[in-house]
This record gives sequence, C-alpha cells and structure tokens, in this order.
Amino acid sequence: MADTNARVLLTTYPTGMPQPSDFKLVNEPLPQPKKGEVLVRTIYMSLYPYMRGRMSPNFKSYMAPVELGNPPPATAVGEVIASEDPSLNKGDLVHGMAGWQSHWVAEAKTLRRIQPSQTPLSYELGMLGMPGLTAYVGLLFFGEPKAGETVFVSAATGAVGSVVGQIAKIKGCKVVGIASTEEKCKFAVEELGYDACVNHHKGNLRQVLKEAAPNGIDINFENVGGDIFWDVLALMNLNGRAVICGAIASYNATRQEQGLDRTAELLTSIVVRRLQLKGILVSDHFHRYAEFRKDMAQWMEQGKLKYREDIVQGLDNVVPAFQGLLEGKNFGKLVVQLHPDPARK
Amino acid sequence: MADTNARVLLTTYPTGMPQPSDFKLVNEPLPQPKKGEVLVRTIYMSLYPYMRGRMSPNFKSYMAPVELGNPPPATAVGEVIASEDPSLNKGDLVHGMAGWQSHWVAEAKTLRRIQPSQTPLSYELGMLGMPGLTAYVGLLFFGEPKAGETVFVSAATGAVGSVVGQIAKIKGCKVVGIASTEEKCKFAVEELGYDACVNHHKGNLRQVLKEAAPNGIDINFENVGGDIFWDVLALMNLNGRAVICGAIASYNATRQEQGLDRTAELLTSIVVRRLQLKGILVSDHFHRYAEFRKDMAQWMEQGKLKYREDIVQGLDNVVPAFQGLLEGKNFGKLVVQLHPDPARK
Repeated sequence: MADTNARVLLTTYPTGMPQPSDFKLVNEPLPQPKKGEVLVRTIYMSLYPYMRGRMSPNFKSYMAPVELGNPPPATAVGEVIASEDPSLNKGDLVHGMAGWQSHWVAEAKTLRRIQPSQTPLSYELGMLGMPGLTAYVGLLFFGEPKAGETVFVSAATGAVGSVVGQIAKIKGCKVVGIASTEEKCKFAVEELGYDACVNHHKGNLRQVLKEAAPNGIDINFENVGGDIFWDVLALMNLNGRAVICGAIASYNATRQEQGLDRTAELLTSIVVRRLQLKGILVSDHFHRYAEFRKDMAQWMEQGKLKYREDIVQGLDNVVPAFQGLLEGKNFGKLVVQLHPDPARK
Repeated sequence: MADTNARVLLTTYPTGMPQPSDFKLVNEPLPQPKKGEVLVRTIYMSLYPYMRGRMSPNFKSYMAPVELGNPPPATAVGEVIASEDPSLNKGDLVHGMAGWQSHWVAEAKTLRRIQPSQTPLSYELGMLGMPGLTAYVGLLFFGEPKAGETVFVSAATGAVGSVVGQIAKIKGCKVVGIASTEEKCKFAVEELGYDACVNHHKGNLRQVLKEAAPNGIDINFENVGGDIFWDVLALMNLNGRAVICGAIASYNATRQEQGLDRTAELLTSIVVRRLQLKGILVSDHFHRYAEFRKDMAQWMEQGKLKYREDIVQGLDNVVPAFQGLLEGKNFGKLVVQLHPDPARK
C-alpha cells in the first residue's frame, strides 16, 4: 500500500441513493509532485452530505459535477511525503482538497498548514474545520442570536449542528434540536446541553416540536429540509431567521415530487411574520477563520464545547459510510481514517 | 346622504373570492365624536389586496379578522366635519383608518393631518402613502439595489410595483416587470420606464422571463406569489434578494393545494445561490416616512415619477372593485371616491 495510491472512482452517476456499483476501487502508482507542488498522504478524509450534489451530472450547483472516472471530492488532512516547494517540508501536516484516495498531489499554496498539537487531527475536518466555521458564521452572523431566544437545530448532533447548538447555549439561547434516534437525542441533551431534542420518528412532529419550543422558534438553523422545514416554519416567531445551510433530505431527490403546493404558506408566513431566509455557503466566509479559531480555542479551554466523531477505517468502507451519512446513520462527525494520526498515537 | 353614514358591512366570511352576497349596504345615523375625537367625511378610501386576509376568520395574520356585522378595514383620506379635540378643526384634511363607510369617528391622535396642496388627495393613499412607503423601504432597505443589477417587479403597474420599478430606474437598475395585460405592459415600458414587461398570459413564462432578463435577476420584489415566484427563483443570481411584500395569488386560497412539492428546489436554490428572502410589512417602517416623502417630492419635481390611478365612484361599486383587484383587473392604484376632492375641483 505504501507505494500505491488507492482511489475510489465514480463510474456511474447515481440515481437516488449512491450504490457500491456506482464506484470502483483501484490502485495506481503514486503521482509525482512537480515544481510548486507536494505529495500528501491522507490521514483522515471527510464525508459531507453536500457531496451528493456533485455526483449528479445536471445539478446546478456552486461547483462542477465530478467527472466520471475521477474520485469524488473530499477535504482531508494528511502528511506531506514529498515536496517540490520551499514552503512545505516532508513531515508537515496539511489540510486540503484530496478526493476519495489515499494520496494526492496539490499546489503547495492551496494547502493550509496545521501546527502539530494534542488535538486530534480529525478535528480540523469537523469542529475546527469547515463544519465548525459554517456553524459559527451561520449562527452568529446570519442568525444573529439574542440571549433568551429559541434556536432550532436540525441534525442536532451532526458536524455542523452540534457546534450550532453549543454556541447558541454559550450565547444564552434556548436550544431545541431534532435527531434521528433516541440515543442521539440523549447525547444532545446530556452532553451538548440542548434544552430539548426531538426524535424524528416521533408521531406528530409539529405537536412534539410545539411542546419542545413553547415560546416558538426565533432561529431555524436548517440542515435537513423536507417536512421538518415546514413544521418549524409554522412555529417561527415574528422577525424569525432561517439560516439555510443544507437540505440533506433533498440531496437524493431526482425530480420535483407531487405533494402539497405550499407556495401560499411559504410567502404568507414570510410576510406576516417578517421572516428572513438566508442561504449560507462556508466558502464565502473564510476571512473569518482566524476569529473563529480564536473563539473556539477559548470555548474549548473553558470546557464549553464537546465533540463526537464517527471514524470509519479504510477506503473499502467509504461508500457504505456515505450512504449512512445521507440516511443520518452516523453518530457524530463522519471521517474516514486511512493512516495513523500522530496526535492519537 | 349628508346626514347619514353609508356603510358596507361584512355579513358572511367569504369562501374563495368574496361575493356581493357576503356584504350588506346600510345607512345609519352619523356617529358623534366624544372628547378627543373627530368626525371625518371620507373623500377617498383605499382597497388593498391584503384586506382579503382579514375577511377570513382563521387567517393567522398581523391583525385580527373583521368581526361580522362590521365594515372591512380601509385607509382613507377625508375632511373633518366635527371636532371635539383642539388639535383638529372642521375643514382639516386627514388620513386614517376608516373602513368601508362614508363617515367615521376617530381619536384625533390616530390621524395624520394633510396640508392642502395641488397634489390630488388620493395620492396619499398610493404613491405618497403606505403603498409608496412599502415600495421605498422594501426596495432600498431590503433589496439594497446596486446600479446595473436587474430588478424584477410583479404587479408592475400596481400601487406598490409602479413605485418600485421607477425607484429602481432612478437607482440605475435594469427593471423587468410582469403584468396581466398587454396594455399594462405597454404602460410599464412607455410611461414608467421599465426595460421590459412580460404579460402573464404569454405561453412559457419561464422562457419569456429568461429572454427579458438575460443577465438573471438580482432582486425580486414579490407582490403576487404563485407560480411566478418559482419562475423568478429559477432565474435568480448569486446573492440575490427576494423582498416578499405580498402574495395576491394566494389570498383567496382556502387550503394547501395538491401540486408540486418544491421544498427541495426552494432550499437548494437558497443555499447554492446564497439567496435571501425577506418579508416586509410597512407598519414596521413608519419611522422612515419623513425621509420617504422628502425623496419622493424631489423625484416628482424632477419628473421622474409617474402615477396612474383607477378611481371608482361610490360605495355601491366597492365589492366588484375589490373582486377586480384580487384578479388584477384594476389598472393603476385602486381607490373609491365618496366625496369631491378639493385638489381636483
């Protein structure tokens, strides 16, 4: 393995849920860095629900679809094992865009160097990486929480949601979450400090939510979409804000579906309650990264942030893990580990 | 007539489109003002689409439904004919909340006094009143237009839309409208200065809109709702803003209808293109009234604002006029005249 690059290639654009038959695992010779480039060995790679969009040829998204025969995208942290650029040395730890493969070549300037520390490297892909920054910017700058307000978080224990919920508590809000199992809900309340967490699979969701948020909802941090969006909309207070971060429930949708036309409900709710719905994409907000890390470091030191990961071993398990992610089966931030983490030795 | 109060009372909550049988025209003795109150004779009263909401007993709105046996609400301008308050004298012109009736008693402090001028009094109910303020605040403070951007206005020649379109032109935007007849579209382009105006009834609306707005849409000033909302959403540019001011197309809806479930399209569009949807209700923004009048006076003096009214005579015609308003049959701001306007003598 040390001398080959193991890669998972997309061979067919999936219809609905991606299947193992849409991918192929191959071993190729290690690529060689050219001037200005480095070769990186992946330690952890990250799986995000939004990647499903890039596996659809016609998806009108912020990035192009994956070309067939290539690995799907993934951010990763890894170790430089060969360098043709003076800014990075062999042994340096870096964060960058790797794809579903064990090694990758990148221009040195596209990588962010990580200082070795006692914090597991995988945190750079979760609470301290893009999901954490999404939660931080989305809640603080889009949601604009005020103490005493009620914040609702879908995918309450996920990579983004768990950070949203905890920062909302730090800001003095009441926090209500939703998650897919009783075990996750217990974790949200007992470990993450949520005031309440509702299990998706509970009967009349709108009624259960109403009891969990008796003062209504001021901020909806929307990660999931689907029916939950409407149940929460119905409970939103005057001047409420919906931070639209993702719509996991829709990522496998192949077409508009027959159902309820809720255009009137949507627009009337927005006018009558003067709601704001705001889409956020983290890549617009990298300029807040330093400020984010500083605040997060302080909150971690104060013991105010807990973090749970779901670590899968090896590229063989990447497709089932990604399926599970789209179905909400992971519990904590999902990462795939390909090589040992120096901070966990 | 001079000594009686003619009133149109709501006798049944309408289902769908309001019908004449839902109302009753009665003549009652003139009410008498008490201390601190005045008696006003209505000169013009205003009909707005949003009033339909207050005729539904269960509509969850920003104001309570009309109680059966009372006149529906209407803002009006009129002349004080008896005063029991030192702040207003007989003969003063005032603006206030009258209802569908020829006379009304109001607390003096709830009325806004209007200085007599050459401008028709009816303008206080349209371009220089709440519709104008809605357009001004909604476009400038919610839409935040930049020169060169494309603004889309539904109900392009209506009381709000016609002001939005003209202020957008003043701010250097490209303006595309939609209206319900060829005649209105011609007026929007030739008189109001729209760059393009599309007739609702043209075949493939999404295609026609795409041709009218080849650079996409940056701001959607939404007055109408229904399918148009989705056609415009599909054309919205990165960082686009939708100012949600009304949803005329939905005001008669009696329930959620079977149709397309567009939740995925909505949330994915918002995230991918970082859209903002913002609900506006003019009553939150009365503190901008003086600034609004100052700007409007300057633009009128410069000949940059045109205004068209659709003036209906007499309370007998109020119900059919209101029906026409909900169907988009009026051409220009709809007002009902009950007594002579001193500025048009």
